Formats: sequence, C-alpha cells, structure tokens
Amino acid sequence: MINVGIAGASGYTGAELVKLIWNHPQTNLKAITSNSYNGQSLARVFPSMNGFENLICQDLDVKKLAGKIDVMFLALPHKVSMEYVPGLLNENIKVIDLSADYRFSNAKAYESAYQAHTSKQLLKESVYGLCEIYRAQIKSSPLIGNPGCYPTSILLPLLPLIKENLILTTGIISDSKSGVSGAGRSLSLATHFSEVNESFSAYKIGNHRHTPEINEILSLHAQVNVNITFTPHLLPLTRGMLSTIYLQAKDHINEQKIRETYHNFYDKEPFVRVLDKSQFPAISHVRGTNRCDFGFYFDENTRQIIIVSAIDNLLKGAAGQAVQNMNILFGFPDETGLNAVQAPL
Amino acid sequence: MINVGIAGASGYTGAELVKLIWNHPQTNLKAITSNSYNGQSLARVFPSMNGFENLICQDLDVKKLAGKIDVMFLALPHKVSMEYVPGLLNENIKVIDLSADYRFSNAKAYESAYQAHTSKQLLKESVYGLCEIYRAQIKSSPLIGNPGCYPTSILLPLLPLIKENLILTTGIISDSKSGVSGAGRSLSLATHFSEVNESFSAYKIGNHRHTPEINEILSLHAQVNVNITFTPHLLPLTRGMLSTIYLQAKDHINEQKIRETYHNFYDKEPFVRVLDKSQFPAISHVRGTNRCDFGFYFDENTRQIIIVSAIDNLLKGAAGQAVQNMNILFGFPDETGLNAVQAPL
Amino acid sequence: MINVGIAGASGYTGAELVKLIWNHPQTNLKAITSNSYNGQSLARVFPSMNGFENLICQDLDVKKLAGKIDVMFLALPHKVSMEYVPGLLNENIKVIDLSADYRFSNAKAYESAYQAHTSKQLLKESVYGLCEIYRAQIKSSPLIGNPGCYPTSILLPLLPLIKENLILTTGIISDSKSGVSGAGRSLSLATHFSEVNESFSAYKIGNHRHTPEINEILSLHAQVNVNITFTPHLLPLTRGMLSTIYLQAKDHINEQKIRETYHNFYDKEPFVRVLDKSQFPAISHVRGTNRCDFGFYFDENTRQIIIVSAIDNLLKGAAGQAVQNMNILFGFPDETGLNAVQAPL
Amino acid sequence: MINVGIAGASGYTGAELVKLIWNHPQTNLKAITSNSYNGQSLARVFPSMNGFENLICQDLDVKKLAGKIDVMFLALPHKVSMEYVPGLLNENIKVIDLSADYRFSNAKAYESAYQAHTSKQLLKESVYGLCEIYRAQIKSSPLIGNPGCYPTSILLPLLPLIKENLILTTGIISDSKSGVSGAGRSLSLATHFSEVNESFSAYKIGNHRHTPEINEILSLHAQVNVNITFTPHLLPLTRGMLSTIYLQAKDHINEQKIRETYHNFYDKEPFVRVLDKSQFPAISHVRGTNRCDFGFYFDENTRQIIIVSAIDNLLKGAAGQAVQNMNILFGFPDETGLNAVQAPL
Repeated sequence: MINVGIAGASGYTGAELVKLIWNHPQTNLKAITSNSYNGQSLARVFPSMNGFENLICQDLDVKKLAGKIDVMFLALPHKVSMEYVPGLLNENIKVIDLSADYRFSNAKAYESAYQAHTSKQLLKESVYGLCEIYRAQIKSSPLIGNPGCYPTSILLPLLPLIKENLILTTGIISDSKSGVSGAGRSLSLATHFSEVNESFSAYKIGNHRHTPEINEILSLHAQVNVNITFTPHLLPLTRGMLSTIYLQAKDHINEQKIRETYHNFYDKEPFVRVLDKSQFPAISHVRGTNRCDFGFYFDENTRQIIIVSAIDNLLKGAAGQAVQNMNILFGFPDETGLNAVQAPL
Repeated sequence: MINVGIAGASGYTGAELVKLIWNHPQTNLKAITSNSYNGQSLARVFPSMNGFENLICQDLDVKKLAGKIDVMFLALPHKVSMEYVPGLLNENIKVIDLSADYRFSNAKAYESAYQAHTSKQLLKESVYGLCEIYRAQIKSSPLIGNPGCYPTSILLPLLPLIKENLILTTGIISDSKSGVSGAGRSLSLATHFSEVNESFSAYKIGNHRHTPEINEILSLHAQVNVNITFTPHLLPLTRGMLSTIYLQAKDHINEQKIRETYHNFYDKEPFVRVLDKSQFPAISHVRGTNRCDFGFYFDENTRQIIIVSAIDNLLKGAAGQAVQNMNILFGFPDETGLNAVQAPL
Repeated sequence: MINVGIAGASGYTGAELVKLIWNHPQTNLKAITSNSYNGQSLARVFPSMNGFENLICQDLDVKKLAGKIDVMFLALPHKVSMEYVPGLLNENIKVIDLSADYRFSNAKAYESAYQAHTSKQLLKESVYGLCEIYRAQIKSSPLIGNPGCYPTSILLPLLPLIKENLILTTGIISDSKSGVSGAGRSLSLATHFSEVNESFSAYKIGNHRHTPEINEILSLHAQVNVNITFTPHLLPLTRGMLSTIYLQAKDHINEQKIRETYHNFYDKEPFVRVLDKSQFPAISHVRGTNRCDFGFYFDENTRQIIIVSAIDNLLKGAAGQAVQNMNILFGFPDETGLNAVQAPL
Repeated sequence: MINVGIAGASGYTGAELVKLIWNHPQTNLKAITSNSYNGQSLARVFPSMNGFENLICQDLDVKKLAGKIDVMFLALPHKVSMEYVPGLLNENIKVIDLSADYRFSNAKAYESAYQAHTSKQLLKESVYGLCEIYRAQIKSSPLIGNPGCYPTSILLPLLPLIKENLILTTGIISDSKSGVSGAGRSLSLATHFSEVNESFSAYKIGNHRHTPEINEILSLHAQVNVNITFTPHLLPLTRGMLSTIYLQAKDHINEQKIRETYHNFYDKEPFVRVLDKSQFPAISHVRGTNRCDFGFYFDENTRQIIIVSAIDNLLKGAAGQAVQNMNILFGFPDETGLNAVQAPL
C-alpha cells in the first residue's frame, strides 16, 4: 500500500483522481488540496462524492506532506506546478504532474509556448508519461510529466508509424475534437451552457499549446523535425475526445504492414485497442474507460492514411493515465484500479 | 412607424428583442444600450447577429433618448430598472420593463421578495403585461411590467378557471421546468456546461420570487388569497419552459365545462392554443414561437385537473410578450412581427 | 462464487447487468442471451464492451442452463418473462426478473395494467425487490420482482412516512422525470435524437403502468387504499431520474419527526442518502451509482412536504438494484460489486 | 405571386420548406405531399406547425398538379425524385430537386455513387444550384439540382480559390461535422438518442457520396481532376454543420491576395460572410439562417490555408438554398423570405 496525495482535488481532473485512488486496491489517500475550497469537505465541493465528508481540502504545504506521502499528483495549472515540484522532490515525494510544466525536455520549446521555466534542470530528469511508449523510463523516474489530452490521442496512433519509419513526417494533420470538461471548472463565456450547447467550433487555430508538445515527441522519435498541423474543436458534450488524423504512407508501405506494426506495438497493452479494418471508434465507446481506441483507413491509390482515435479526455487524457503512470512507477500491473468494465451508456 | 430603444441588448433577452424589433414592420430601432459592452457593435457581442455591425451599444442616458424614442424596452435586472423608469416616463417615453420592478401592484409584496421600491407610486399606474388578460389596460398605460416567464406559463392556463370560479383556490401546485437561457448570460457554476449537461435539479424550493408574483395575480382574480406551491427546475436545454400544474375542480364542474371556458377565453387569441383532449405540448412545439400551448387531463373520479403548459421562455416568457405588449400599446395587431411560422427543429 | 446468467443482454439494462456482474468479485458470468443478436459477441453489439469478444449471445433455453446457473437475471419485456420463469424455477435456478411480471401480489392489478398472467400462483411467492424495505423476504425467495425505476424513486422516500403514519395518504402527487435510456434501445420516433434533443414533455398522463405498482405497495404499508397522482416526463439526457413529490404531513407532525424517521430507516443503508436540510439532489449526483439521494422541504404553515428524489434509472432503478437483490439473496454485503465511487462528471 | 408545391413535406427538410414558403411574401403554397402521412394535416405530423391544420398531405400525382403549380420542390430521397421529374417538366412545372438525382452533369459519376439514372438526358439541362456560383444559369433553368449540405459548406469557400488558380488542387482535405437532423426523420440506431447523445464519431470514411459531387464541381472549375479527402462526422446536436478544410496556397500567393479574392466574390452576396482575420464561425452563429460564414488561417511559412466554414444544414445546406434558387429563378431578390435576423440562441 502506498500513500498518495492529490493537489487540485476540486477540479474535474482532481476529482477523477480522487475517485480512481479511492477505488484503487493498493493506495491510501492521505491528503487532498484545493486553493478555492480550503477547509471544505470534498463532498461539499462535489455533492456526488458521497463518502468523502471526512476528506477535507487543505492548502498545499510541502512541509506538512513530508514523510507522509509516497507520491503526489498535481492537478494544477501550468506555472503553479513548478512552484511545488522541487520542494516535493526534496522531500522524497514522487511527483506525477498533470500540468504542462514537466512535459518538455527542451526548455525553449516550453518557454515559447508557456512562460519562463523556474526549474529547467528538472526537465532533464522528468519523463514524459505516455505509458505505452515510455514505460521503461517511467519505472525509475521520480518526476513524470503526464501528457496532455490531445497529445495522447494523437501520439498513440502516430508513434508506431513514426518509429518504424512507415510514413512521411511532413503534412501530418490532426483535426481534433474535445468535450467541454477539458476546459475545467473555471467559469468563462466559452463554457457557459447556452453558448456551447447546440454549437461547435474550432479554436486556437495555428497556435494551441499542445502543438509544440506533440512536435517535440514526434521529432524525437522521427529524428527529424516534425511540425504537424493541429486544429482543436469544442464539442457540445461533457467528456470525450476524438482525433481524425491525416498522413501519407511511404512508397513501399501497404495496409498490412501498418496493421502488423500496430499489433506488434499494442496487442499486449491493456489500454490501447487497434480496431479491425473498417471499424472506427466513437467517443461513447471509450467514455468512462482508460482506453485509447483507434482504427485506420488506407487508400491504396493515394497512400493516404486516415486514423480516427478516441479517448476519455479525463481518463486516458488525464487522471487515468496519471494512475497508470503511478502503477508503472510502483510496480503494480497497469490495469490495477483501472480495469472496471464500462457499459455502453 | 415608431421609434424604439432597447436597454440591456447584450443579454439573451435583449438580443431577442433586437431580433424581433429589427424584423418588425412598424418599428425603427433607434438605440441599444449595454453596460458591459458600451461602445461595441452588437455583431461583436453576438457573432450570429450579422447586419448589426453599425448598431453600437451605448450607455443608458435618458436625456439622450428624450424626443427620439417612443418606447423603451428595459431588459435589465430588477432594481436597475427602477433607476431609469421615472426619468423615461418624464420624457414621455413609454416603458415596457422586463424586470420585476413594475409587475406588482402591492409594494409590500414586491419589497418582501426583492428590495425597497424607490417609486412605489408608479405601481398604481403600471399594468401587468399579461397580454391576453390585461389587453384593455395595456392599451392606455405608459408603463407595463412584463410578466415573468414562469408566471406566464402558469397564469395563462389558470386564470380562466379562477375567473370563472371553476376550481378550488387551495392546493394548486405548479411543477415547472425551465431551459438554461432563463438564467441569462452571466457566468455561474450553476450554468457551467459540464454542471448542467446530463443533469436536472429543482432549485429555490419554497422561496422562488415568482411565487408572490403568481399569487398576487391569482388572488386579484379569485378575490381570495391564493397561495400556490411552485417548484422550479433546471432543464439541460437552452430555451423552453414547461409547467405541469395540479389542481382540483369544484364539485359541479365537468371536463366539458372546462374545455368550453378555455375556448371562450382563447379561441380568438393568436398566441394561446388550447390542445385537444389527450394532447399535451412538448417544448419543441413552441420553441421559437410566441405561443403558449397547453392541454389538460381531467380525472372524473377525483376531480383532479392536470394541466401541461409550454412556452419559449425567451419569447412568450420575455421578449415576445414584450413586443406583443408594444403592439397592443400602439394599436398594431398582436401578431405584427411575431407570426413567423416555425419549423419543428 | 456463484454462477450467473443474464437474459436480454443486448438491451441497455442487460448491458449494465453484464458490466456489474463482470466487475463483481463473487460471480461467474456463465451465459448471456439475446433474441436480436443471437450468435453475436457482446463486443459487437456494444463496441464499448471491450473484453467481451468471447461472450456470445445465445437464445434463452432453460434446459441448457439447468445445473449451470445459480441465478438468472431477466432483462426482458413484460409478458416474455412469464414464459421462462416457471421453467427456470423448476430447474432450481433463482430468478431476478426486471420486467413487471412478478412485481404485483394482486393478479388483478397486474392484469388490468398489463395482460393476462400465466403463472398467477407464483405471485404469492415472489417478493417485491425493493431492497431496503423487503430485505428479510428477499433473503429466502427464489423469485424476485425487481421494482420499476419510477416506483423506486418514489417509494423509497414515501414508505418511511407511510409506515410510521406521519402523512395523509390522499393527495400525494409525484411529478417524475426520466432520461431517455429508460425507453430502451428499440427504435421509435419518441426516442429519435432530433425529436428528443432540446425538448421536454409529459407522457401517459393519468395512465402510466407504474401507477398501480406504486399504489399496491403504498396501500399494503398504509393499510388503506392509496391512489397517488403520478406524471412521468421525458428529459433530454441519457441516464438519470428525478421525482418531485408533494404530500401533506398529519397535524401533529413536525420537520424534526420526519427527519428522525428517515434517519432511523436509512442511516445504515449504503444506498440511500437522506440529505441535510435545504439540500436537494441533482441527477448528476447519483449518475453512475446505485444510490437514491433525497432531500425534503417542510412548510410549517401548510404542513406540505416536498421531496426531491434522484436515482440513476439504469442502476438503482434497474440493474444496480437487481444486483443488490442478488447480494441479499446469496448473503453477500449489499455493496458487493456496487460500491465504486463516482466522480462528478 | 407564384404557386408552389412541396413533395416530401413530412421530413425535416420538407417542413423547413413549408415554413419558408409560408413566410415568403411572393408565394402561395398550393400542395404538399407525403408518402407516409398521406391524408393527414401537417399540424398532426409536426405538432409545432400551428396554422397548418388545413394543409393536408396528399400523394404525389403529377397530373393533379398540372396547371396549378409554377414550381415544385422535391424533398425526396434520391432515386424517388427521378420518377417524377420528367413528368413535372412535361407539365411545365419547374423543379428544384433536393435529392442528388440532378446534381451531376456526368451520369457515370452519379451512377457509380448512386444507381442507374433513368433520365440521363436531363443531366445536361439541369443546373447545380449553388446560388452564388451558378446564378446566371439558374435564372433560366427549369430544373435545378439543389446541392448537398456538405458540398455547400466546402465548395463556397473553395471555389473562389480554385477559380482564381491560387491553390494546389491536390491534397485538399475537408474534415466535416454535421448535426443529426441531416440524417432525416427515419428511424435508425445511428440516430437513436441514447446512442448519439454525448458521443461523436466519423462515418463513411473514404466513401461518402458527397465526395464525387464535390469533386465534379471542383474539377470543372479547376480544369483538372480534383480529388479531395472528405471525412464526415456526426455531432450530438440537431442542426448545423462545420467544415474544417486544409489546403496549400501556390507559391506566389499571400494572405492579402486570398482575402481580396474572397471579398471580390462575396461582398455583394447576402448569404456568404467572409470573417475578419482571426475570426472563425461557430455553428451557433449561423443556426436558423441561410448564411455560410467562413474564416481562414494562413501560415506564411508552410503556405497552408485552414478554412473553417459553417452553415445550417437544413437552410443553406438544403431548404434555404432551395428557396434562394427559387428566388433567382423567378427574379426575386435572393433575400426574399430568407432575411429574417436571428438571435444568438
């Protein structure tokens, strides 16, 4: 049994973490923090969270956590995470950070997309927590930068093709669509019910901060600079994400080769599911699960590949993958606390 | 042609008023005001409002409006309306106020539900703008208190039965449900997409401010004090309202008598539609229209009546009824600018 | 470990049962049946149901199940259940029937609401599976009629008050609202997306088949005939149900007495949660759980009680309560396989 | 005043046509037909359609229409339209066909996507009713093939760039998303509320029938064969469509040139709105209007253009454009009966 803390428990991702850790057979939830709800029980913050009347949000004080916590999840905004991570590591608390602060190995890339980084040296030590790709490194790293939701939905189907050199690294386009929960619980006109409901729109065209995150990882594996086109959209639904990805196979590559490559990479992975030919996922297929499901279409004439990939943005795109990282870090099977079957509705 | 101003044009009700007045064949829209968007075009506030690039939100300055405006719609919060109404009337500008400030004739009832009233003497002059019931008084009043959305959906089917003394005035219950647009465009956790979507709840049980408004009107017509039970709920949809109303017929009353009474009251009314036996409205039937549709069920054994009544909360429940009031006030047929047919979706 | 079969696994309730039984630590899922999808894997019927590729829908053949199954869940339409129940009992297979066929003890009440009953004698042996009320009888009954969703949401808050004789048994009204999943997976215009979305309506006013089910149970406990008014409505959301119930306290009863009564009944129950004063549930609070949450408002002047009660129609309203019944029947703690914490979204 | 008939009035597109023609100042609606609701009033088919109690659905009988109708809208499935069009033309009734039957000039392209064409010779005479592009031809054609919804949203922003030779004609991708009303009122699991709600998915990847329609028009104007990649998706909302289109500018082309080209094409068009730099449409901006709004992003480094285009699939994507075609055909201004302002909700 390990002792766990969760910072930012009053957000949607934080609440998912509380749920997962509570149901997890190998953890004790020792501390939750919330800036906005300090001193209040989580059951008051989220009336659905029955049984949590005695779990009180506290402020995030590294000294108080020292010696009591084995691992801390940070469901905090970028920039805020950086303020706590060095202190937590100093106290021998492992950190799984769900902000963007430790996802980059290149500080300049981070700084051009976000702001000045106050602990650049840690970027060399932190591991990008895309479980299926970085499992070996995750096992031994005290600091994990949990991937963004969009990057997870895009990188999982792209990396096998990139690593095996099956596709052109230019001209890759991901047209991605996310549910509203990805924008968190903070108030804004963009997430006001009457504005979102019965509507749909693209946003941050050409400049979303997940683009450099995706490009860094793709480039590392391609060994050339990769610059994808990434267009996020806002769906009128609460949870779920779907990416439609367009790319070109290299000349000698056929559908069979792609399919084999995928199966080699993922057949033993409990949370990635390569769909059969002509099968594509819907968001409803993965909602409430930690899975990434994807299918692909290959046009023999044009050599174009179209991949459709779906995740639950709060699970495989955030809290679920964070717990999967914890499982890897502490030597539990990946599925521990994450393998509940989900009904279709 | 009359000259019209709209205060509070940057809210949802204000925008509906702009749309209706713009499409209205007998009006010129001369001024719109907005506290939050002063100096900006309405097309910038609402990107859907094409053609309004030249319509600029100004501040609400009575002196500037004097002599230019025949009638002013106030789509303002209660208490704010009171600050402007006496001044507007002094300048011979007629006022249709969509706040609660001039709906009550009894100042004490207003003050116990809202706050101190700063122009009580006007309450004697203002008319409650429930068009089908107060048409005669509306024609000659410079100040109209436009009814609340819930009261409109409840009073229209109740008043004929109350006035004709067909029902018990005790034990009336209205279980009412509203779309989210009724809460306006201001931000709150209660209207955050992820909180409302796929949920449903009751609110302000036992103390909603529309209860005294309904009771005052019912009591005036019943000539006894009526205290109804009113429970509002929030629906996960943008526009529309449905009230399910439970009451008891008096001993000698049968279904036929109720039906005849309704038809006598409403058959010549363009915006009230009494449905046939066993027919009940859905919100989709009235969305985008200025209609109130209702049907009723009569249980011969228990003499219980169940009425189901539906309106579009932004039209018959707010902006549409306000324009209907303007039509009556200026001698246009009720339907002017309001009779566009609506398709089912 | 017990061996379980599920009939009707290709419906929404059936799929919820599969999920619950699969995640349950004390069961083996031995057979699933489906009339429409005979021979197909459940993963093909519901693409979300990963891991069920080897679980093949078969036809419902009692002989094949004999000796292999300890308990059979029937998620079948009424009338169809009756065709199989006597045969299953003959083979010593316990039955938890989710249709209406064995919910009534009075065959006439059943027959006037449904159709001729072909095994009336079993109605004397079957137990109404409202777990918190009939736990003692459930423990020893081979045949359980699992309650309807609406009745569950209404009876749980009403029965303590009825049994303790605190309220008038006349004039009780339940205004109830259900998500669309309650209508199942069969196609109809009433559940077509474009018809339901952004709409809301009442249906079967005065004649819904759940009314006699509710009345029979209330009357048994009141020891007088109780006839409630029950009006169901269709919400534009997938899962969840909320009932707003209006009733009158007897003269000597105060709020404190009601509250104490509720706590005496339910404080030890894991799946019923009496909310504090001024607290009322939303559907989002119980979605994905087996809980019934309710709060109440008491008006001291009128002695009126307003109860708001929420359940997930597919769980406490169907599959969850069915598994809770199985737990009671086989001596497992009620929460077994049902106590997963749920996050707010 | 012209006399109008509408075939297929009981579908969603047909009902939109009824609404538009009814509100149109220059038309008399003389006949509506419906296969499924023959003999019933439209108010019974769609309870929202008040005032249509006397408008009775009849069967489609060309002989009965002869001499009474100037123009017939056919909101029928493909293949069914072909059965009536030659007969209608013989009776000197102009036809605006909303099926795919007369959209193609190349019969082979039609036949490979649909089925054998029974009046191929008419394909030479019919005009593709994309109003802004084919206005001159529409004016004098008795037979108009009204464009598909997806093609409209894609062709309007693409054609100016194609015609002015500003872009590469290879590698064009349209990732398009439609509301559920596009699938009509027929029942299917794919449009069942509980399956669509809170989900999102791609469909007909690589083989949607709108692809050859788009390609034929693009190729005609490019004077080379154009083959775009088109991926449709289903949004969990009722009405609206958004296409995100990826393409490459030619070497010498800059953003200014693209913008000028668009303004030259569309500034005088009442129903196409080119948005300012960094502005992109949401579906809510065009819902309930006949407009196509689009904005574009130009990446100077890669010369990639990303266009986001939005329409209401039932209006500019179907019934609205059909009425615009009628206006052109009969010499009315395009906006006649179509220019009602729309509020944001």
